[in-house]
Amino acid sequence: MSGQEFVRIGKRLFSEGLVGGNFGNISLRANEGFYITRTGAYLDVPGTPVLVPLKGSAPAGASSEYRVHQAIYQKTGYKAVVHAHPAHAVAASVALSRIVPVDSEGEMLCPVIPVVGGAPGTDELAENVAKALEERPLVIARGHGTFAAADDLDHAYLLTSLAEHSCRVLAYSGFFGGCRR
Amino acid sequence: MSGQEFVRIGKRLFSEGLVGGNFGNISLRANEGFYITRTGAYLDVPGTPVLVPLKGSAPAGASSEYRVHQAIYQKTGYKAVVHAHPAHAVAASVALSRIVPVDSEGEMLCPVIPVVGGAPGTDELAENVAKALEERPLVIARGHGTFAAADDLDHAYLLTSLAEHSCRVLAYSGFFGGCRR
Amino acid sequence: MSGQEFVRIGKRLFSEGLVGGNFGNISLRANEGFYITRTGAYLDVPGTPVLVPLKGSAPAGASSEYRVHQAIYQKTGYKAVVHAHPAHAVAASVALSRIVPVDSEGEMLCPVIPVVGGAPGTDELAENVAKALEERPLVIARGHGTFAAADDLDHAYLLTSLAEHSCRVLAYSGFFGGCRR
Amino acid sequence: MSGQEFVRIGKRLFSEGLVGGNFGNISLRANEGFYITRTGAYLDVPGTPVLVPLKGSAPAGASSEYRVHQAIYQKTGYKAVVHAHPAHAVAASVALSRIVPVDSEGEMLCPVIPVVGGAPGTDELAENVAKALEERPLVIARGHGTFAAADDLDHAYLLTSLAEHSCRVLAYSGFFGGCRR
Repeated sequence: MSGQEFVRIGKRLFSEGLVGGNFGNISLRANEGFYITRTGAYLDVPGTPVLVPLKGSAPAGASSEYRVHQAIYQKTGYKAVVHAHPAHAVAASVALSRIVPVDSEGEMLCPVIPVVGGAPGTDELAENVAKALEERPLVIARGHGTFAAADDLDHAYLLTSLAEHSCRVLAYSGFFGGCRR
Repeated sequence: MSGQEFVRIGKRLFSEGLVGGNFGNISLRANEGFYITRTGAYLDVPGTPVLVPLKGSAPAGASSEYRVHQAIYQKTGYKAVVHAHPAHAVAASVALSRIVPVDSEGEMLCPVIPVVGGAPGTDELAENVAKALEERPLVIARGHGTFAAADDLDHAYLLTSLAEHSCRVLAYSGFFGGCRR
Repeated sequence: MSGQEFVRIGKRLFSEGLVGGNFGNISLRANEGFYITRTGAYLDVPGTPVLVPLKGSAPAGASSEYRVHQAIYQKTGYKAVVHAHPAHAVAASVALSRIVPVDSEGEMLCPVIPVVGGAPGTDELAENVAKALEERPLVIARGHGTFAAADDLDHAYLLTSLAEHSCRVLAYSGFFGGCRR
Repeated sequence: MSGQEFVRIGKRLFSEGLVGGNFGNISLRANEGFYITRTGAYLDVPGTPVLVPLKGSAPAGASSEYRVHQAIYQKTGYKAVVHAHPAHAVAASVALSRIVPVDSEGEMLCPVIPVVGGAPGTDELAENVAKALEERPLVIARGHGTFAAADDLDHAYLLTSLAEHSCRVLAYSGFFGGCRR
């Protein structure tokens, strides 16, 4: 596991502004479980990923968000997961109970983006996200961020980019935000 | 066809935030038809463009949006087309039936930006876009993205950049968006 | 005149999003007049600047905006001018007749940013901008862009960056934009 | 003191848009006081930091904001301070008397972000910021910018990134801004 693919996808996520700081994490299914980015890693310089078993606790160094990834790989057949914190998608998840894109790509590829609850790091969040991904490849944890699942890292990144694009279009055209006060 | 020009323009589109993920596509007229970016390609690392004939179906690998480019080259004398998904321009096309820039460059270079309908990949979209470009070099497909046509790739990119700039100025100064709820 | 300083400042303007496409231009006073970026140049790869005399017409290749720069060097003692199109500053100039920053840096360095009229390329714009710069180092041409003058290119760039920052703070905190419809 | 760490963190702050121009400054505690970026330095190319004693005036070349950093190191045990001007955080500090994040990371890591007054460069600002940081690691000087303190530069940068993210989510979901006029 060289991690070169993690670097390539991490740099794309960073340069598009889909993550900032050391937020977000990436994983890829392996024979023996899945590889995930390290806890606290910057996704554009992620270092060596950590191998986590499909069940049970993770070794030291794995992202603290490993439970969500583990639950996804247990419940679905997906091979790659990208978790990011794109600001418009997070804002949409705070303002709306479910997100219905009005741009063409959103309408085609994710006509409804479900919003689920659960605090970061909890089994509740892991279950809610994995359950939602059994039906659709993209979900937003309310106030937290996107989880996108696919057969490879590129497609999980692309769903993440799409989620933010769809939410930017919704925000700019006035479907949420604006005048709460 | 080395594709170096596609890389140069693709990188500019990406670094300005006019496209994200693998959205958007670029084409250049040739003697035998036109070269277009590959389906699913990232515009900043587009790989080798695909030659598409001026009539009839495209070879495998060509962007699925080739029908629009083909219709443009059939109906007009333009030599280059850039299709992008700039978020403020897409939002403006959702909120407004036609776009009238209030910034100086928009007023000079594209005083009216028409908005046309049609689902991505359909002949309807291809016809609507090509027809609009017979009158003006820039059009927005509603909820989808910009199509800009010019004599070279640089000028098609510049019209794309201008479209987003004009729509950002409209959005920030309150001409659309804001308070739909 | 190597133009290395133009490249350095041009790249900073571009990477901060203060210009897009081939908009904006930069000039530096010389013994015999002033050096200005070429017409149509991308500011991040500007090529060799063109020497323009302090009076009279410019040689082919000079930015079409040279009249404004010429008027500034005639009327003031400044040595460097940066003209850019930052989107929030342009939007503020459309929405407000003069701009009063509410951030600390704006309050200290440009407590009032005047907005002047005049179409791009006209003597009217050149006179209005130069006249405003006799009193303050920063002005916005309505719907067009910023003109900042200083003793060197760095400080002219910094005033440009400040103008956009101040206008972003005004926009985000609700002083303009929002609810025109 | 090689300053390599200052460059690395400065580049991250710049590429995320948390500072622009030559705004912001960074410091790191040393045995004999603290190292701080130079006055007027661009944080992405900061040059050699300047050593400032824990009490008394700073040598020529030190950031004019050194008083705030000095007060923080006097009153707290923190080892690193990052001061930045992220536009949404500054706008939030203008619009709100204290900031309560609604995103998960904000809720966990800085559930309340205090806003304090005081003009840049004054002892009043230095005292207000240092006092606030005795209770929480992150504070915003009204209309001016963030001050984040931590055990190392990475964590001070991460708090800065988080502040802007939380304020972007608040702005986009309508908790401030919008419709002041």
